[in-house]
Amino acid sequence: MTAENYENENLEDKLQKVIYLLHKYKLVDGLVRLQDTPRPDLVESVIQKQNLASLQNMLDKLHPADIAYILEALPLDDRLIIWGLVKAEHDGEVLLEVSDAVRQTLIEDMNSKELVAAAEQLDADEIADLAPDLPSYVMEDVFRSLPMEEREHLRAAMSYPEDAVGALMDFDVITVREDVRIEVVLRYLRRLGELPDHTDQLFVVDRDEHLKGVLLLNQLLVSDPETAVVEVMKREMVKFHPDDKAEQATQAFERYDLVSASVVTPDGKLLGRVTVNAVIDFMRERADYEARNQAGLSEEEDLFAPIWKSVQNRWAWLAINLVTAFIASRVIGLFEDSIEKLVALAALMPIVAGVGGNSGNQTITMIVRAIALGQVNQDSTFKLITKEIGVSIVNGIVWGSVIGFIAYIIYQNAQLGLVLALAMLLNLLLAALVGVLIPLVRKQLGRDPALGSSVMITAVTDSGGFFIFLGLATLFLL
Amino acid sequence: MTAENYENENLEDKLQKVIYLLHKYKLVDGLVRLQDTPRPDLVESVIQKQNLASLQNMLDKLHPADIAYILEALPLDDRLIIWGLVKAEHDGEVLLEVSDAVRQTLIEDMNSKELVAAAEQLDADEIADLAPDLPSYVMEDVFRSLPMEEREHLRAAMSYPEDAVGALMDFDVITVREDVRIEVVLRYLRRLGELPDHTDQLFVVDRDEHLKGVLLLNQLLVSDPETAVVEVMKREMVKFHPDDKAEQATQAFERYDLVSASVVTPDGKLLGRVTVNAVIDFMRERADYEARNQAGLSEEEDLFAPIWKSVQNRWAWLAINLVTAFIASRVIGLFEDSIEKLVALAALMPIVAGVGGNSGNQTITMIVRAIALGQVNQDSTFKLITKEIGVSIVNGIVWGSVIGFIAYIIYQNAQLGLVLALAMLLNLLLAALVGVLIPLVRKQLGRDPALGSSVMITAVTDSGGFFIFLGLATLFLL
Repeated sequence: MTAENYENENLEDKLQKVIYLLHKYKLVDGLVRLQDTPRPDLVESVIQKQNLASLQNMLDKLHPADIAYILEALPLDDRLIIWGLVKAEHDGEVLLEVSDAVRQTLIEDMNSKELVAAAEQLDADEIADLAPDLPSYVMEDVFRSLPMEEREHLRAAMSYPEDAVGALMDFDVITVREDVRIEVVLRYLRRLGELPDHTDQLFVVDRDEHLKGVLLLNQLLVSDPETAVVEVMKREMVKFHPDDKAEQATQAFERYDLVSASVVTPDGKLLGRVTVNAVIDFMRERADYEARNQAGLSEEEDLFAPIWKSVQNRWAWLAINLVTAFIASRVIGLFEDSIEKLVALAALMPIVAGVGGNSGNQTITMIVRAIALGQVNQDSTFKLITKEIGVSIVNGIVWGSVIGFIAYIIYQNAQLGLVLALAMLLNLLLAALVGVLIPLVRKQLGRDPALGSSVMITAVTDSGGFFIFLGLATLFLL
Repeated sequence: MTAENYENENLEDKLQKVIYLLHKYKLVDGLVRLQDTPRPDLVESVIQKQNLASLQNMLDKLHPADIAYILEALPLDDRLIIWGLVKAEHDGEVLLEVSDAVRQTLIEDMNSKELVAAAEQLDADEIADLAPDLPSYVMEDVFRSLPMEEREHLRAAMSYPEDAVGALMDFDVITVREDVRIEVVLRYLRRLGELPDHTDQLFVVDRDEHLKGVLLLNQLLVSDPETAVVEVMKREMVKFHPDDKAEQATQAFERYDLVSASVVTPDGKLLGRVTVNAVIDFMRERADYEARNQAGLSEEEDLFAPIWKSVQNRWAWLAINLVTAFIASRVIGLFEDSIEKLVALAALMPIVAGVGGNSGNQTITMIVRAIALGQVNQDSTFKLITKEIGVSIVNGIVWGSVIGFIAYIIYQNAQLGLVLALAMLLNLLLAALVGVLIPLVRKQLGRDPALGSSVMITAVTDSGGFFIFLGLATLFLL
């Protein structure tokens, strides 16, 4: 996005508007605080002196991630005004940083020339991240504009699914040979003039690009310049294949406290590397995905999305919920005669269903987490089921007795209290069993154990709870 | 934990047992895969040749995080057998790596001498992480055994709350003066012989330890040895205060792709640093906390915890859930006369409550996330409420009509269908309003906007849904 679109506006007006917006949304202070420079005062003095050129300057100097942050926090109209003022050379990086939903609003505001220019500023692995959101004719132009090696990288990066290590990989590797001396390596680096971000190690490869080891920068710095690389390199290191699950890579980064790690082909050729910042972004996206999924949001949603977009994002899970609620409702419908005879059943049945749902969610959360960490296997499954059933028996007896006694007091009906207590116990047992089995079975089928697990367990404990309670009541009370 | 406790057992028996356990739980393969060394074969050959000494050797060479992983995946009895075989010099690091729940089981198995020895292997900031789980007399011994500077560090590290930057901080900083030449810095590093993990920058301080800038290792490596530090150091950098929220630090690491960042006193003296691995651990703990919280688990739970421990961990949220379910039940109780006259109400009321709860959870998740990112402020609150209400009107009309029509078909009662549709619409409006307000009000009161938000919104939409539906039915149908 260039400022040219706004040529007809007066520059001063534009910047006034920007200042106003940044202050209105109290965004400037939040950013500046982190960097701990005296910018808030600067902004004030700039406004007082109407020194607008230096304000534009300030805006230009913001980190692309900060610009992304500002854009995400602004309603659509204001967002596009600021976006129009972002320097064209930052466009690519800002597009990388914003959330998917906000990225779409920005891309819709750009013409194809601007989009191609923005993409060309980026590395191949970064372009691959943007690719799904770019129109295909833009991608074709970008592709043509790249040098041969970058094209290969882009093709490689785009060939991996989003949850594979290949999608996290970048190609900014510095390689050295094992027989050169440290001093030569140091001279080589000096000649490069700049090292890629997150370079904590150089990769030692042979003539055929096979990875032999890594030379840690920390080691490089403390080694005698006359030693050979082979004497100080590390041969034991974490290697990924591009088809490995990204989740596996995040676990390795967490476990071994890595900053970067190599990605190699099955026969050991160096392809690229994964860095900790890609891992952190993946972790954050994954956590957001799980939180959304838990709440029934299909996709990332722009905070200021238009109503119809939000409705689209939310309708699928509401529809599923409606179906499960409808099934529960039909289960109750089976027992309408019983409820007519003893209307207290209607008032008490949500307790059985609700507590069952809560308990089932506790179980399923434990199991899903354990599966994600690879801590569940065939031998421990039986142990886990036994434990969860044990917990639900204790809870069923304790809470069933409490609520059964309260029902007895309210309705002066001891049998009703007993039936309620028994139904509670049985529904908690059902919740424990299904809470362990749903994620295990989904895993066996090769599905994500977490996806929709909360909706499923609640569906079972609702319908099951109503059926158990009303069925027992029909058998014993009527 | 030393192997001495098991002196009376035959070494060969012990190791056979370890091999058996590791294979039984299929743990060895999972670990070795990441490191991509030919260890699985090695293990096989070792077993065949009964070459047990080299197997103990293999176990000793595992990364402490891998040992922690194995321990977490094992039931208690087996866990303690392996723990008994872990080399004493790894005890401290393994204790750091395991989850809180598993740590307790390991610490209970150690005597105070072993605990003091384990803690002494660690840095001050790491001891501070263990401190809450150690008996106070052990901590006193540890404290006395430390050199003066370490004592100060430990005291400092223990003085910050868990969610402050100070709790993430370590003291492994290398400082240099701005007037020295790069070549002198390089010689200084070589003399140190080893750099702390995650050293991506040196800190440039003056005589009074005031932070003047940072010298990136990448810059150091490519600079002319004859230049002075002051010419190549970066003056703009991320600084934290130890009292800053840890959450703020994680956002800065994500936004600016940091590997390490300085922690300074309010007057600019360098205290220590935060590294990306501490940030990743914090992110993971935070995500786990939120997932648990959502599901109603009070604390981290050992997968193989005894039943009574699990019951303790889960009872608080079940009790809260029981209370809200009881309130909903009493709301229904108010309308027992109406239900007696028109029993279809009992079957339909859970639909109104359920869909309202789902929709409310969608809203509250959006808002909590936006608050966490600092994207919500006074000006945008009104916009957000308007939007959420708009979404719920659309959903209410669409889904209300659908389910109202189905109810009309089933019960051949048009008025009942209309009341159901209207109740759905009103409950979704309630869900939207409360879904925005609960987190905002909690934030205003200085509380965590996320804590228990799902339980609260469900309580409101359950009781509210029953009241709206049964109330409307009583007014219009009876």
